[in-house]
Amino acid sequence: MANTDVLNEESLAMHKKFNGKLGVVSKVPLKDGHDLSIAYTPGVAEPCRKIEKDKNLSFEYTWRGNCVAVVSDGTRVLGLGDIGPEAAMPVMEGKAVLYKTFGDVDAVPICIDAKDAKEFVNMVQRLQPSFGGINLEDISSPKCYEIEAELIKTCNIPIFHDDQHGTAIICLAAVLGGLRYVKKDIATAKFVVNGIGAAGSAIGKLLYKLGAKNIIMVDSKGALYEGRPGHLDMAKAYLATVTNKNKIQGNLAEVTKGADVLIGCSKPGVFTADIIKGMNKNAIVFGLANPVPETTYEAAMAAGAAVAGTGRSDAPNQVNNVCVFPGLFRGALDVRAKAITEEMKVAAVHAIVDLIDEKDLRADYVVPGAFDKRVAPAVAAAVAKTAMEQGIARVQRDPEEIKAATAKRIANHY
Amino acid sequence: MANTDVLNEESLAMHKKFNGKLGVVSKVPLKDGHDLSIAYTPGVAEPCRKIEKDKNLSFEYTWRGNCVAVVSDGTRVLGLGDIGPEAAMPVMEGKAVLYKTFGDVDAVPICIDAKDAKEFVNMVQRLQPSFGGINLEDISSPKCYEIEAELIKTCNIPIFHDDQHGTAIICLAAVLGGLRYVKKDIATAKFVVNGIGAAGSAIGKLLYKLGAKNIIMVDSKGALYEGRPGHLDMAKAYLATVTNKNKIQGNLAEVTKGADVLIGCSKPGVFTADIIKGMNKNAIVFGLANPVPETTYEAAMAAGAAVAGTGRSDAPNQVNNVCVFPGLFRGALDVRAKAITEEMKVAAVHAIVDLIDEKDLRADYVVPGAFDKRVAPAVAAAVAKTAMEQGIARVQRDPEEIKAATAKRIANHY
Repeated sequence: MANTDVLNEESLAMHKKFNGKLGVVSKVPLKDGHDLSIAYTPGVAEPCRKIEKDKNLSFEYTWRGNCVAVVSDGTRVLGLGDIGPEAAMPVMEGKAVLYKTFGDVDAVPICIDAKDAKEFVNMVQRLQPSFGGINLEDISSPKCYEIEAELIKTCNIPIFHDDQHGTAIICLAAVLGGLRYVKKDIATAKFVVNGIGAAGSAIGKLLYKLGAKNIIMVDSKGALYEGRPGHLDMAKAYLATVTNKNKIQGNLAEVTKGADVLIGCSKPGVFTADIIKGMNKNAIVFGLANPVPETTYEAAMAAGAAVAGTGRSDAPNQVNNVCVFPGLFRGALDVRAKAITEEMKVAAVHAIVDLIDEKDLRADYVVPGAFDKRVAPAVAAAVAKTAMEQGIARVQRDPEEIKAATAKRIANHY
Repeated sequence: MANTDVLNEESLAMHKKFNGKLGVVSKVPLKDGHDLSIAYTPGVAEPCRKIEKDKNLSFEYTWRGNCVAVVSDGTRVLGLGDIGPEAAMPVMEGKAVLYKTFGDVDAVPICIDAKDAKEFVNMVQRLQPSFGGINLEDISSPKCYEIEAELIKTCNIPIFHDDQHGTAIICLAAVLGGLRYVKKDIATAKFVVNGIGAAGSAIGKLLYKLGAKNIIMVDSKGALYEGRPGHLDMAKAYLATVTNKNKIQGNLAEVTKGADVLIGCSKPGVFTADIIKGMNKNAIVFGLANPVPETTYEAAMAAGAAVAGTGRSDAPNQVNNVCVFPGLFRGALDVRAKAITEEMKVAAVHAIVDLIDEKDLRADYVVPGAFDKRVAPAVAAAVAKTAMEQGIARVQRDPEEIKAATAKRIANHY
């Protein structure tokens, strides 16, 4: 706890010293009247006139082409819960810093005072002209599904709920890396996902999308199955139809017996040694609860897991979505994608997995780290390529060129 | 016209080259896991918790304390009219560049797809948690009055419609400078203001506030007076009660006879030589229509004016609100003012006027230029001082210290 206190004090002091973490800069010279007449009136009227005739040009003549809004209502912030929009700002600002540092994406933290889902959707729809993409963040579930679905349906810029899909993409990259290491096949492995909130449900869906056939989702009521009594939210209702085909019932410990992969997006400490010991040989365990995971790396390995990982930066195999969203939006913005599709998410997973050569795979290295400078360029190129192949890119660019440009963009950022 | 074409091409090329004019930067280091744990999870939770308990701390721990949104609906952009939110972005982004360059204020361009005044108000109200102040921009009149009034009433951060008040403040500074030069008194001088839109009406109100007793406002129907037939918007209805007490009727040429000061926020070329020749001795003429004024500096002087000015950077006595808004918000943010009051606007006027010593006053130098580095520090200090005196500042600071800090902040910006 003393350690935590020290970290907290250091964080407070840093946030105060810099008055937050983000600033804006002018990219253009402004030294004299001529500069002013180019950047502002009267010269600025010309790009305005061009955009009036073709709105797509706003991605070219304004920072919209490189700018993402990180939007939250502050209803589910980190492990802190519903702390309100003002208190959510340090997280959204931090996210914007990560976008810039890891992807050279200009991101703006927008915390909205609107708890009602319809009002939130209305706000984001009307903010579209200012941004090239929307990162939804820290919105409580199940409201987040409704908001995301409605925005994807009605907006013509990429909408991405990072708590769901960023986490799912990096988790799946770690899962595929782990399966490669233990030489198991996603199609035959048994998966248990504990926690069916934003992250857990997205992981379940992406596992299914990537070919997993034996998935059991678990929440506080035990295993999810079709026809389970009680209310199921949008995500659970869908997952009940594509997972647990044998309608196995039981609690976490019971359904995890014989599992090959156990993933947690739930609560600290719930993956006991006994649960892990009850898994199949060469078990893979990812405890993603933050900051205290379902099991530590050490505890999981001591209980016999072949591969383990957490969200923590102080342990091996960190499952950190900073490997995902900066490169993902870098690629989406670079080809002006109209959306982030399932296929683009899958492309991001494979791009990350492919960064580790077979010969480099180890029990404590199945997924690249947050500071691996190969990640964002690879993700950007793969996402852009897929968007172009799907016909949802507004411009065409060479993916290899995007990869090289991204590497150059972030070379001096960290 | 060839000149304009060259400028337009140069502007387009510059906007395209830089992909807009604005970028974000991280103010904090992010080189390793420790940096990440301070700026993001888990350390970021601590400022969140503090702000949850006291929302005011959001001005300290997030960039909100230095951040203004430049918000428009794109319904009245420059001389271009209702070109829509996407096409308005280059102007709002330019404004943000000016905020940063001249005041070291972080400003974010927000173009909203909401033409309805109530919806626009709703949006801005709900965006409050993310910003320390709101600069309303390029909203059509009379809608802009209603929007501004409602936001001032309901928001607890400064709301400032620059088209109205920024223009009025710098115009009044120029007027007072001109009156000093010709040794006339605001209380006895006769003023004519042509154009009663956002800028003209604000100039009329501020003239009245500063002690002018003989003001005639003129629109397309001629002189405004109490009881004039036809509809009067909010601003005109008020001005009809405090100007033109003698209910003089007539067109611009008629009512300008014998005037000491003529101000235009109207249309190119309408201040003819005959009109200027009909004014009182030592006439002062400001034609603020942009980019082509009601009269050029040269034409006004040739027609016998003692002092003239326009909005143009290529002529003397430029009346440019870049002298106002950066310093104004610098001061308001520095003491976390809850609003921008009439008194703060008046303080800004005097701060600008006082920058020119009696001995330096000339016909072609009655108002400081846009690139005068003394302006923003002086305005910031005066505005902050007044906010503190009025009890609407959330923190107390020494105005002289604010002046020095502002000078330092912008020292290398231009």
